[in-house]
This record gives sequence, structure tokens and C-alpha cells, in this order.
Amino acid sequence: MSPNRLNRRFALVRRPEGMPVAADFQLLEEPLPPLADGQFLLRNHYASLDPAMRGWMDDRPSYVPPIQLGDPVRALTVGMVVESRNPDYPVGQWACGMNAIEDYSLGGPGRFTNCVDPDAVLSVTNYLSAVGTVGFTAYFALLEGGEPKAGETVLVTGAAGAVGSLVGQIAKMKGCRTIGIAGGPAKCDRLLRDYGYDAAIDYRGKSPEELTEAIRAAAPDGVDVHFENVGGEILDAGLLALNQRARVVICGLISQYNSDPYPTRNLWQLIVKGARMQGFILTHYVPRIGEAIPVLADWVKQGKLRVDEHIEEGIENALPAFLRLFDGTNQGKMILKIA
Amino acid sequence: MSPNRLNRRFALVRRPEGMPVAADFQLLEEPLPPLADGQFLLRNHYASLDPAMRGWMDDRPSYVPPIQLGDPVRALTVGMVVESRNPDYPVGQWACGMNAIEDYSLGGPGRFTNCVDPDAVLSVTNYLSAVGTVGFTAYFALLEGGEPKAGETVLVTGAAGAVGSLVGQIAKMKGCRTIGIAGGPAKCDRLLRDYGYDAAIDYRGKSPEELTEAIRAAAPDGVDVHFENVGGEILDAGLLALNQRARVVICGLISQYNSDPYPTRNLWQLIVKGARMQGFILTHYVPRIGEAIPVLADWVKQGKLRVDEHIEEGIENALPAFLRLFDGTNQGKMILKIA
Repeated sequence: MSPNRLNRRFALVRRPEGMPVAADFQLLEEPLPPLADGQFLLRNHYASLDPAMRGWMDDRPSYVPPIQLGDPVRALTVGMVVESRNPDYPVGQWACGMNAIEDYSLGGPGRFTNCVDPDAVLSVTNYLSAVGTVGFTAYFALLEGGEPKAGETVLVTGAAGAVGSLVGQIAKMKGCRTIGIAGGPAKCDRLLRDYGYDAAIDYRGKSPEELTEAIRAAAPDGVDVHFENVGGEILDAGLLALNQRARVVICGLISQYNSDPYPTRNLWQLIVKGARMQGFILTHYVPRIGEAIPVLADWVKQGKLRVDEHIEEGIENALPAFLRLFDGTNQGKMILKIA
Repeated sequence: MSPNRLNRRFALVRRPEGMPVAADFQLLEEPLPPLADGQFLLRNHYASLDPAMRGWMDDRPSYVPPIQLGDPVRALTVGMVVESRNPDYPVGQWACGMNAIEDYSLGGPGRFTNCVDPDAVLSVTNYLSAVGTVGFTAYFALLEGGEPKAGETVLVTGAAGAVGSLVGQIAKMKGCRTIGIAGGPAKCDRLLRDYGYDAAIDYRGKSPEELTEAIRAAAPDGVDVHFENVGGEILDAGLLALNQRARVVICGLISQYNSDPYPTRNLWQLIVKGARMQGFILTHYVPRIGEAIPVLADWVKQGKLRVDEHIEEGIENALPAFLRLFDGTNQGKMILKIA
């Protein structure tokens, strides 16, 4: 490796309060350490930007340790091995793993990095979308957490989002009637046109009562599976439309990642409906990801599963690209092109 | 039947706002109609008083229709058949069913009434407690909703209550470590002395943060099953102490039956723990009650399951007896002795 090769790293230098701002981060340039035996160097081409990353920036106990101040922001990346002292990861091999927003990541023992085959998908970026964490999340959260059955009604919030758009399509493949909730007419158009939803509801400008009414109108037979990506008033409204024995999947609560938790008022509906609310975290399904990869890759390659990727370019644009997840201006899975 | 026999009926005449008051009810005296073919007359000896009855007094859609104004308050009762035109329910037969707080209930086609055997239990009132709805609730909600495994920690709120005291004992029989939360030192003493809890927490005078700390101190390995009878701040505090893959059973939210729903703030814990929240309603388990009856009756008769019954006398005392469920002055399953 060239000793003067520099690694640009998008580092967290201050814990954000609420929505992250530029002063919370710094683009460091650091020399790369020499490879130890068993290590390899991955040139990151793309990084996945996900709402969960906001939680990792806080200094509170969670399912993964907080990002340490001064460390680069943790992210799933896909890239190519450019130097290697590990025969399982030869130079030229594509690999995907939990790394960070940086030009180069070190791989090797104790790191989670898997070799991937670009020819099994339409684009190598698919390993950050439909055949990556959002795809695995949609697949396991819907099928295991929601247990949808043919003929049932599945409601998805954040339905035009990276996870939601896949959930709607998978539910449809399982023979369900699908209703999507999203913000604004453009997203609602995409629900019907691109993701095959049977009905679309624009939550903007609606009071919680109006939202409940809209759900009831779109789901006259009630909702059997409520797939929640947003939380807040939308979840509260949806709880009132549940059928007996309904399943609520709590996959994300993006409306409150930058604020105090929203107070949910309608939990009593779980009792009167005998309904279940299943929190979903992908780490519990890591041992089963091997089941999902060939299924999802096949759906993508055959065109059965449409995946929209919103790719922004340049590591220097990491923050504005990340913030699109929260202002709703992203159009598909947010991905940062690093090289 | 004597044509001049009068039936005293504890009728709902106005929908309560918040806590029920005397003017919401009236003790009617009505003549009994003659029996049609297939009908029988049950002399009610005892009526079960349950928190769920408060919900039936409201005029809102739920899992059972609201009590109509002018109708007696719906209740599970146990009594003896005193007149019969139904060979399956001969005079002298004890029976238990969903009837009302009244001297006599009509049984027959379309009514839910089962013959019961007083010799299979310690007292016929057990069919309103450990071998009645609270027993079935504790049994199915804990075992099916909570799926406790030997060695796990089970936290029960309302732990000295009718359901909670049974839940703690059943969890103990399944090999779990049990922690009970109740209000006041007297109830906490009973948790340890009478119901075999391994630890007791008095929620009174504790802030939500202090309650979370107390739970963490009593459950250093975390909570695997959270059995909720109370709701509100206690549930919020408990959500912070859950283990990965924990199961929360929402069996009752008695803290809010007479008020607006409490806003739950810590639902995000379900995501980071990959935890499940299962609402419990007994109606979904009615087809399986036959499994539970012999098990519960056997536990009671053998003294393995202690059941405390708080019996108040006289139909004219129905309201004050019912209100004891909400001010916490009942000591065991509330039962009203009618005859």
C-alpha cells in the first residue's frame, strides 16, 4: 500500500441534540495503517444511509455501542478489496460489511464483511438496498413479525420509503391487499404506480381523527397487519383500525428519532383486539440472512421487486444526504457514492 | 315459578363519566317472565366484579356490545338452577355463566352458561376466581402471551390483584424468578408471603425513573416477561428494563379505565430489544377453556395455587364493591354475594 494514501473519514465530533448539524461532524484525513496478517483493505464505493444511524450518535445504551466521538460514522458499505493479507478476500473481490463512511475500511478477523457477487443482482448497490439491510428488514419484519396471510389487509406507513416500498411489494406477492401511507401526492402516486399498493393515503394535513377515518375508508374490512416505520400520530391512528388478532410490526419510529418519544395513547386497542405488537431488530435475524439473500436477489433480478435507490455523490455530502431521510426528500433507499 | 317472585336487578341508567357514581345505577325490581321451552332459571349466588365491566358501561365499540341503558350490569355469576324447562340444566344443578348482577338470570339457548361441579374445587366461588375468568386469563395470558421459560425473570404489575397473584404463582411453578409490583407495604408483604414472589416493589412515592431503578435492582439480569395489569407510568418504567426478545403481555390497563389513555413514551424499547407486546383478550381463548379448567381446579384443590377472594355481601352494595377494584382496597378477587 502506498504509505502516503490518505483516508477521508466522516467523523462524529459532537453528539447531536435533535437534528444533526454540520458542527457535529468533521471530515478527517488520516493515513492508513499497514495491514496486519489476515487483514484486507476495502475501497468503499457506496455507503448506506439509514435512520438507525441517528440512534448510534447518541450516548445511550442500545443494541449496538454508541459511535465514539472522533470515530467515523458507522455505516454499511460495499466496495472492492484493493490490498489484502487475507486469502478469503483477494484483491478485486467485492465485499459488503458494517464499516463506516470513509474512503477505505479495514477488514479482517472480528469484522463483519461478506463477499458479494455483483452478477447476482442488477447493480452492486442492491447489496445496500433490496439485498441489504433494508431488504432483510422488510423480509423478516413482514413475514415473521407480521405473518401476513393471503386475503388479509396490510397497512404500511412510510410506505414509499426504503423499507416500506419493499414491504408493500412483498405483501402483494403474498396475496394481501395493501394500503400505503405517505406524505404528499407525489409519494402517493408512486405507491400506486411503482409499488403496486391497492390504496394510498396522504397523511399530510390530516388530524389523527381524519387519518383514522381515511384508514377505515381504505380498509373497510379492517387492518390485519400494521407495518409501522414512522410512529407518532400515524401509529395511534392505525391502532384504532386494527382487526381482532391483528399484528403490528414496529420496525421504525422515524418521526421521533430527533425528538422526545411520542406519547402513544391507544395501546388499549391491543387488549380489545387481542392484537400483537412486535418490535423488530435485524440483529436477531443475522443468523438467518442466508435464507433471504437468494430470494431477494432473485426477485430483484427478475424484476419482481422494484427497488428505488437515491444516490448522492461525494463523502463531503454525507450530512445533507443523511438529513434527507428525515425531511422526506429522498426518493428511495439513500445511498452515498464515495468512489 | 311463583308469579309474584321479583327479580332485583342492578341496572345501568346513565353512562358514567370517569369513575362511576351512584346516580349512574338503579336497583330495579321486576317480575320474572314465565320460562319458555329450553329455558331455566338460575338463582345467582355470587357475581364476579371485574375491571373490564367499566369498559362495557361506555357507549363505544369494543369486543362485546355496550351494556344498554336500563339493562342490568353484565357479570359472570355462579348459582343454582331453581326452575327448569331444559333437561341439561335440572333443578339443583350449579351453573356458571355470563349473566348480570341480578337475583335471577334466565338461561337457555343463546346464553353462555356451563354446569359446574362444586366438589372439584374448594368453594363454588372458585368458579369466579381461580377457575373462572381471572384464572383463565392468568393461565392463557402468561403461558401463551408471555411464553415464560424456566430460569427467566417474570415481572408482574398489579401483582397482588386477582390476576396478578395467580400469574406470579403460575410463573413460579414454571421455574421462573418472579418480581411483583404493588401499591403499599401491606400488599408487598402479601406478594412475598402469600404468592411466593422472589421480590416485591412498592410503586407508591416513586418517580418513573426511581421505579425503573427499582426494577433493575430487583432484576439484575433484566426482565424476560413483563406482565402488565396496570399500565401508565409503571408500564413505561418496565419497558426500559426489558431484555432482548422480551415478551410484554398487556392484560389490563386499570390505571386508565376511568380516564383518558395514558401516553406511553417508551415504545421504542420494543425495537431496540426486538421485543413483543401481546394484547390479551380472553374471548380468543374461549374455545380452549376446557384445557385450563382441570389444571386450575387441580392446582386449587391441591393447595398449589392460593386464591384470595374478597367477598362483599348484598346486591345493594354492588357499586361500592365494584369501586374497590379502582381504589385498590380489595384484597383478592372481588366477588359480590347475592344470595
